[in-house]
Amino acid sequence: MRYEEFTIEGRHAVIEAFRSGKTMDKVFIQDGCKDGPIDTIKREAKKHNCIIRFVPKERLDQMSSGGKHQGVIAYAAAYEYAAVEDILKLAEEKGEPPFIILLDNIEDPHNLGAVIRTANLAGAHGVIIPKNRAVGLTAAVVRASAGALNYTPVAKVTNLAKTMEDLKKQGLWFVCADMDGTPMYQLDMKGPIGLVIGSEGEGVGRIVKKTCDFVAAIPMKGNIDSLNASVAAGVLAYEIVRQRML
Amino acid sequence: MRYEEFTIEGRHAVIEAFRSGKTMDKVFIQDGCKDGPIDTIKREAKKHNCIIRFVPKERLDQMSSGGKHQGVIAYAAAYEYAAVEDILKLAEEKGEPPFIILLDNIEDPHNLGAVIRTANLAGAHGVIIPKNRAVGLTAAVVRASAGALNYTPVAKVTNLAKTMEDLKKQGLWFVCADMDGTPMYQLDMKGPIGLVIGSEGEGVGRIVKKTCDFVAAIPMKGNIDSLNASVAAGVLAYEIVRQRML
Repeated sequence: MRYEEFTIEGRHAVIEAFRSGKTMDKVFIQDGCKDGPIDTIKREAKKHNCIIRFVPKERLDQMSSGGKHQGVIAYAAAYEYAAVEDILKLAEEKGEPPFIILLDNIEDPHNLGAVIRTANLAGAHGVIIPKNRAVGLTAAVVRASAGALNYTPVAKVTNLAKTMEDLKKQGLWFVCADMDGTPMYQLDMKGPIGLVIGSEGEGVGRIVKKTCDFVAAIPMKGNIDSLNASVAAGVLAYEIVRQRML
Repeated sequence: MRYEEFTIEGRHAVIEAFRSGKTMDKVFIQDGCKDGPIDTIKREAKKHNCIIRFVPKERLDQMSSGGKHQGVIAYAAAYEYAAVEDILKLAEEKGEPPFIILLDNIEDPHNLGAVIRTANLAGAHGVIIPKNRAVGLTAAVVRASAGALNYTPVAKVTNLAKTMEDLKKQGLWFVCADMDGTPMYQLDMKGPIGLVIGSEGEGVGRIVKKTCDFVAAIPMKGNIDSLNASVAAGVLAYEIVRQRML
């Protein structure tokens, strides 16, 4: 894995990156910006010997890849992808049955970021994404993850179904979300589990779905077809949290 | 309320708009686009006497406000805001205790769209947003709502706290999401309820929070501060669904 400079945009994301102990190279703050979060960023930057540059808004707009810098852009070391073993090791260290979220070709960076954020707060030990087609850890994903990428390992694999087969040998069960499944409240999801979320529009791929042990349905009481992918991930992840808390 | 032409972008959103019976004026399809969803759109357009125009991608890019047209843009009548009474009437017609989602200054169109989508599928009778500061029903919101706006009424009010006081007189209880609240599994949310979701970053406003009867906490097992607003709305809305199904 190459080391490369990486851009973090937005106040929340920059503050979280500092607090997680990530190596920050430089932070750019918009001229005249003065409020609580900006003061926090200045304080954190000084504490970590990080260079602060005050620049006009136009400069930030130019540097920004998503246009949503909120007056702050920082340069940091790149986020490194984890290995699948790191995720299992994290579960072992915590003494918990593994809980992994797998994303089958999520293409929207907002959704990927929101899922990593959910994984962190729902106590999942990591996220696995496929190498092809899906979005990677871009600046927009880092921003949408609101700092969760600093704590929650993300692994990238060549073949999601093959990785699932390998993990099954290590005791994991896999559940994917689909309308034709068993209502999620009736499934036992307390053991070592991989939760598979499909892409917007296409859902979970045929082979990946066949590799799953269970199909879970979220109750649908409305007129449209499906929840937003990151919302569906959140609802299912928290059903796992609820069952594990019982 | 003025009638005005409105742009709907993306395949899923256009198909849903047709199916809901919305008045569609014209649909623009990218030259050479041929696949299942596009065929469905052509069929729906013919069935509803809607004009079809085939245009080059550049033309669609120009017309698009979010750049995510996926080869299809349609013109339709504007989405009309509902009145709060319409939402209560819908609950009455269905013979269900009212379930309303209120958004305290959500500024991200992806989040607003995703919440309307969640409201539809979780069986909420409507969504209430404040007039000031928050995002309205823009093309990006319509697209992110994946058609849910055709079914789920959205009301816009001047003062969220005042609307809540009025609804309390009609028997509603209000719950907002915040870290310092009671674990959501311990609250009884089966009755007539308004679920209040705060903005990203700032959370629920002070006065709105004071107006709430309960504060619900989603269990947080990670390192960061908060879930994405639309994910938090989904997790809480589905806890209400679960309790009502018991």
